[in-house]
Amino acid sequence: MKKLNVGLIGYGFMGRTHSNAFRKVNNFFDLEYQPVLKAICARDEKKARGFASKWGYESVESDWRRLIERDDIDLIDIASPNNTHAEIAIAAAKAGKMIMCEKPLSMDGPEGKTMVAAVEKAKVPNMVWYNYRRVPAVTLAKQLVDEGRLGKIFHYRAKFLQDWTISPDLPQGGAALWRLDAKIAGSGVTGDLLAHCIDTAIWINGSIDKVNAMTETFIKERKHNLTGKVQKVSIDDACAFLARFKNGSLATFESTRYARGHKALYTFEINGENASIAWDLHDLHRLQYFDHKDEGRVRGWRNIHVTDGDQPYMKNWWVPGLQIGYEHTFVHQVADFIEGLQTGKPASPTFREALETQFICDAVLKSAKTERWEKIGK
Amino acid sequence: MKKLNVGLIGYGFMGRTHSNAFRKVNNFFDLEYQPVLKAICARDEKKARGFASKWGYESVESDWRRLIERDDIDLIDIASPNNTHAEIAIAAAKAGKMIMCEKPLSMDGPEGKTMVAAVEKAKVPNMVWYNYRRVPAVTLAKQLVDEGRLGKIFHYRAKFLQDWTISPDLPQGGAALWRLDAKIAGSGVTGDLLAHCIDTAIWINGSIDKVNAMTETFIKERKHNLTGKVQKVSIDDACAFLARFKNGSLATFESTRYARGHKALYTFEINGENASIAWDLHDLHRLQYFDHKDEGRVRGWRNIHVTDGDQPYMKNWWVPGLQIGYEHTFVHQVADFIEGLQTGKPASPTFREALETQFICDAVLKSAKTERWEKIGK
Amino acid sequence: MKKLNVGLIGYGFMGRTHSNAFRKVNNFFDLEYQPVLKAICARDEKKARGFASKWGYESVESDWRRLIERDDIDLIDIASPNNTHAEIAIAAAKAGKMIMCEKPLSMDGPEGKTMVAAVEKAKVPNMVWYNYRRVPAVTLAKQLVDEGRLGKIFHYRAKFLQDWTISPDLPQGGAALWRLDAKIAGSGVTGDLLAHCIDTAIWINGSIDKVNAMTETFIKERKHNLTGKVQKVSIDDACAFLARFKNGSLATFESTRYARGHKALYTFEINGENASIAWDLHDLHRLQYFDHKDEGRVRGWRNIHVTDGDQPYMKNWWVPGLQIGYEHTFVHQVADFIEGLQTGKPASPTFREALETQFICDAVLKSAKTERWEKIGK
Amino acid sequence: MKKLNVGLIGYGFMGRTHSNAFRKVNNFFDLEYQPVLKAICARDEKKARGFASKWGYESVESDWRRLIERDDIDLIDIASPNNTHAEIAIAAAKAGKMIMCEKPLSMDGPEGKTMVAAVEKAKVPNMVWYNYRRVPAVTLAKQLVDEGRLGKIFHYRAKFLQDWTISPDLPQGGAALWRLDAKIAGSGVTGDLLAHCIDTAIWINGSIDKVNAMTETFIKERKHNLTGKVQKVSIDDACAFLARFKNGSLATFESTRYARGHKALYTFEINGENASIAWDLHDLHRLQYFDHKDEGRVRGWRNIHVTDGDQPYMKNWWVPGLQIGYEHTFVHQVADFIEGLQTGKPASPTFREALETQFICDAVLKSAKTERWEKIGK
Repeated sequence: MKKLNVGLIGYGFMGRTHSNAFRKVNNFFDLEYQPVLKAICARDEKKARGFASKWGYESVESDWRRLIERDDIDLIDIASPNNTHAEIAIAAAKAGKMIMCEKPLSMDGPEGKTMVAAVEKAKVPNMVWYNYRRVPAVTLAKQLVDEGRLGKIFHYRAKFLQDWTISPDLPQGGAALWRLDAKIAGSGVTGDLLAHCIDTAIWINGSIDKVNAMTETFIKERKHNLTGKVQKVSIDDACAFLARFKNGSLATFESTRYARGHKALYTFEINGENASIAWDLHDLHRLQYFDHKDEGRVRGWRNIHVTDGDQPYMKNWWVPGLQIGYEHTFVHQVADFIEGLQTGKPASPTFREALETQFICDAVLKSAKTERWEKIGK
Repeated sequence: MKKLNVGLIGYGFMGRTHSNAFRKVNNFFDLEYQPVLKAICARDEKKARGFASKWGYESVESDWRRLIERDDIDLIDIASPNNTHAEIAIAAAKAGKMIMCEKPLSMDGPEGKTMVAAVEKAKVPNMVWYNYRRVPAVTLAKQLVDEGRLGKIFHYRAKFLQDWTISPDLPQGGAALWRLDAKIAGSGVTGDLLAHCIDTAIWINGSIDKVNAMTETFIKERKHNLTGKVQKVSIDDACAFLARFKNGSLATFESTRYARGHKALYTFEINGENASIAWDLHDLHRLQYFDHKDEGRVRGWRNIHVTDGDQPYMKNWWVPGLQIGYEHTFVHQVADFIEGLQTGKPASPTFREALETQFICDAVLKSAKTERWEKIGK
Repeated sequence: MKKLNVGLIGYGFMGRTHSNAFRKVNNFFDLEYQPVLKAICARDEKKARGFASKWGYESVESDWRRLIERDDIDLIDIASPNNTHAEIAIAAAKAGKMIMCEKPLSMDGPEGKTMVAAVEKAKVPNMVWYNYRRVPAVTLAKQLVDEGRLGKIFHYRAKFLQDWTISPDLPQGGAALWRLDAKIAGSGVTGDLLAHCIDTAIWINGSIDKVNAMTETFIKERKHNLTGKVQKVSIDDACAFLARFKNGSLATFESTRYARGHKALYTFEINGENASIAWDLHDLHRLQYFDHKDEGRVRGWRNIHVTDGDQPYMKNWWVPGLQIGYEHTFVHQVADFIEGLQTGKPASPTFREALETQFICDAVLKSAKTERWEKIGK
Repeated sequence: MKKLNVGLIGYGFMGRTHSNAFRKVNNFFDLEYQPVLKAICARDEKKARGFASKWGYESVESDWRRLIERDDIDLIDIASPNNTHAEIAIAAAKAGKMIMCEKPLSMDGPEGKTMVAAVEKAKVPNMVWYNYRRVPAVTLAKQLVDEGRLGKIFHYRAKFLQDWTISPDLPQGGAALWRLDAKIAGSGVTGDLLAHCIDTAIWINGSIDKVNAMTETFIKERKHNLTGKVQKVSIDDACAFLARFKNGSLATFESTRYARGHKALYTFEINGENASIAWDLHDLHRLQYFDHKDEGRVRGWRNIHVTDGDQPYMKNWWVPGLQIGYEHTFVHQVADFIEGLQTGKPASPTFREALETQFICDAVLKSAKTERWEKIGK
């Protein structure tokens, strides 16, 4: 089996999900490449060492430039905060490395364009970790739409609801809390959560034409977790927007971290002429499907327990009825990336494909300011 | 329209459900007969008067024998405690009255036999109020089984779970609490709740061959609500039994009033070779249906919202999506009874049909004592 | 008991729900007034006679002006198409009649204002049939918010999804199909369905400050059901809007008749600082409630089966566990209207209260045209 | 970190779940021991090599006696068919190896006793893989009962429903189909599925006093998958039994492979005086909890999404809202086994604890033959 030497940058939450995926993929998928956990890179070398020991990384780097220079690294996996993606990815591309980049791709569309240009110029395999595409139920939803089962699509609606920032005592700022700082994260729920919703939506339902948004920051000031200083909150706590897809369907999108009772409730629903689909992340192994062609008297939403061998990815896991969870979506993404290497047909979303989500986020944030409909840039 | 003059005996909970059904049926069903609330009969004349005034009964009787003698009464509706059913029904049959009798038919099988003999000798229309057959979702379940959609049936399971007698401070005895006195009720959960489960089961899945039961009385003594004396509890608080149907299927039945969190959770599930069905009373307007013939990749339990015009009884009510509730099952029963008068094909269950349930209850209670399998008597 | 002589105008779907409510209310509620079905009024006298016979109306009128003149009528109940409400209501007010008017109040805000002026000048009791306020679970939701259990409210979201107009072969126009003609209905889903969502929302969460909407007409032309001519479709098939409440909360509203698989799925959810609430019309007897004050380890959404005696309206019906349905909301509304007569504290929503919904609908429809935020008029 | 050298016997479905657990445990749990995949043992050496390559086993053995003799093996993990457990375990104990044995422990109670004697004589750490105890929601259920939150327990009910053997064309016999041969499996659903239900039940609710069972073999003959010969089916396809626990609670248990629509629906429910609990394997990350102490008006079953850090095992995985699945229960079991080594307090169930389940299965199978109540042996 060919080795795929991985250099991971960042040991946070996403560093763990990626490492787990690289370690597990060959136990469950028959592939020509085997990811090797070659190096973990992080500024805090001591913490990096602890992470390396826990996950079996062979070496540690504290400077990502040094990592990129190493000849024994085939693939750079970027799991560091959003404001570092572009610089690292462009350098890695120049060094001829394959790149897997945590979502969102970039701080905004224009920055993302420079990343796309870099990887396309360097012709290096590249992908963005929009892992929810690889939930088997979501992949099945995509297949059903692609097979034309829904007919003309009228409506798309998506939400991503959380409740972890409701307390005014929660600090913002450094380390694990960088998602609350717009200078590091780019935005609040828009880039963090709505980006997921948008990625799935355009994958399944095609491009968005225009959007009309509102945002809100419920808590205006918070203490910084490192400095202790009270500072203005720079991110959007909540964002909702109306959208029109190019295919004529209407959409509503919403995300917030102030929806008491919801931890990570990403949901979407698609209504077509002949059928409808609904899914939610809190029971990610299920797909709801309504087929109007079913005989009227016994027609109803089908609650599909997506654990059978003929459903996406599931023949690689256990037996029918036994569910997988969140982490498996990352394993699928690595498997698909490797299959892309094998077949020459890149796994999606590539940087170019993920760029569209950036421009939609830009239009959403702009619309929230201009208070009118905004077309999607390029 | 022809008048159907009703004389109701008993003004308790069932007196209300029946009265409501008689009053409403012609507003929603096109029938040749119109029930007229002619007389309410109860020993407590003052309370009977209050009831008559609330429901529009034209007259009041305090002696049921007097009611039966009246020429202006066509139909005697028995909604008094179980230990009064036989005497009233037999007298009413002799007087040539139609009879609708609240379930269970009788105190036990042999007593029920005398009732069947009386109505059949008198050739009077007769029916027992096993109302749950007329939940649209349950009727739909019956249709699906009759159409052969399930194929060979392997399993039947039913439960009726309540929690209203858990407190040891609850008294037993007279008036509203007669259900806790075996001398009046015949038995505890067996006759009160399992009788419903059994009636539905034999209607849908055919006769039961033998049963093997256990019963329990968790609270051994309670105060009498009228006398204040502490007395032995005479009823079964809980009963579970195994059963084998004549068609070869296996069954489990269970009922209790000690299932914390369940108010009136009557549920049943049927597993056949090709399809399965499940239903519960807490969402009575829904039927769960799994059809193995659905394409594998999108197969799942269908959650059928039984409110469409092509589903049983529903074209008579509102529009799709708008649910009916508990009381409507009684309206359906009156509508079916009247249709039986019109067509000469009696609505089920007749006394004879309901007798089978009595013998099954007898075998269940006997088995709990003998601790072995008991065949069903006749 | 005092008589309340009712003259109903319109024998359609709403004529049935109202008649059923008037007939049943005294069987279940102890009130000082008894509605009497005095007269049904409709242009088609033959159909009116059939309706009168089915429901027990004592007389028939074919001209509503004649009905209003009758001395033996206390209350005019308007269940005719939307474009007739104002003229009838104003005339009825002048004649000193009490008025119950089907929702929406009027064709638009300014027209509604003239109706409010008329009833307030005449000092006649008046109410609009926003029946969903009287679903016990919805009333309970209102109570929980009023008790302050949710704390500061961050989000409100409501949807009303149907699928009955998807077929392009469905005609539009007269009789039962007047809801598809904007000249008669005023608008499409906005006045028909969103009006319900808005009424509940402002009742529970207070006034709306501004809205930003989009509408769509998916099928542009349909045959007229009476003339057979193909005509432009004048109504909105779908409408979604963003809103900001005066209390600082953000909202999304959406309605469509093109959501395959949903018959009448009215849903709302409210997220507060300390608790959240969710409800849907397809299981109207349930309320979802999440209380953050519950101990963390066993915290979860509570699925409340709203059938207990200490829950709104339920002590008047059956026993715990036995659900009521759609029609009961109208019974509750009549009971509350009569209690308003008894106490002098009018049942809500009065014409004045319902007027706010009209102005919100106006702003929604205007915003869909101007493509920007619109403040609510007065 | 100390090494724990594992020798696995069997490369089937359970070989995969165990290997995955050994490989992953140190990535997520802080432990003093690290399992090392030292050797895989199976008669078919070629397949064993393939398995070793996929999972990273360092060596391959084709004779389990040879494996047990190896000095570099600390722990023997038995994942071979049921009829091999005893011989291997006893030999491994004699060789001083730690032992983890797939469930059920043995072919029957008496055989299991010899295994218990062997490990206790040898004083080797030992455990049986009843993995469902380690579903976080199930562990939480155990905690809630142990904390006394349910009060006196009245009812326990459990089911394990599958549908994979309904087709009469399914062969029985060798390799993956050994579960359909009583000579290899010991019994059908009783040992395979009910053993899980029983293990959980006695863990949470204490010992069972007596049982009363029925079994059925729906398909009487099947082709052997290797020989092609039609042979009598020796296993029980379905089994249901009544039980009485020592604590006075009543129980029903049922398992079948003929429940169309259910793939692996293990469910249990416990009703106590003050609270109730329900769980099912198809949504294993959720626990249903009803607490009667909640205020009546807002009381309902709490749907607990067991993904928070204060819920069992979950602080080791991802963040709230992100679910784990089936495989994680095995990881938890390894983590607990290792903690048992560290603390000297063995993880449950030990061989001795798992023996009770064997005797209950024996009594169940005996009762199905004698058709009467059977006490549990020792």
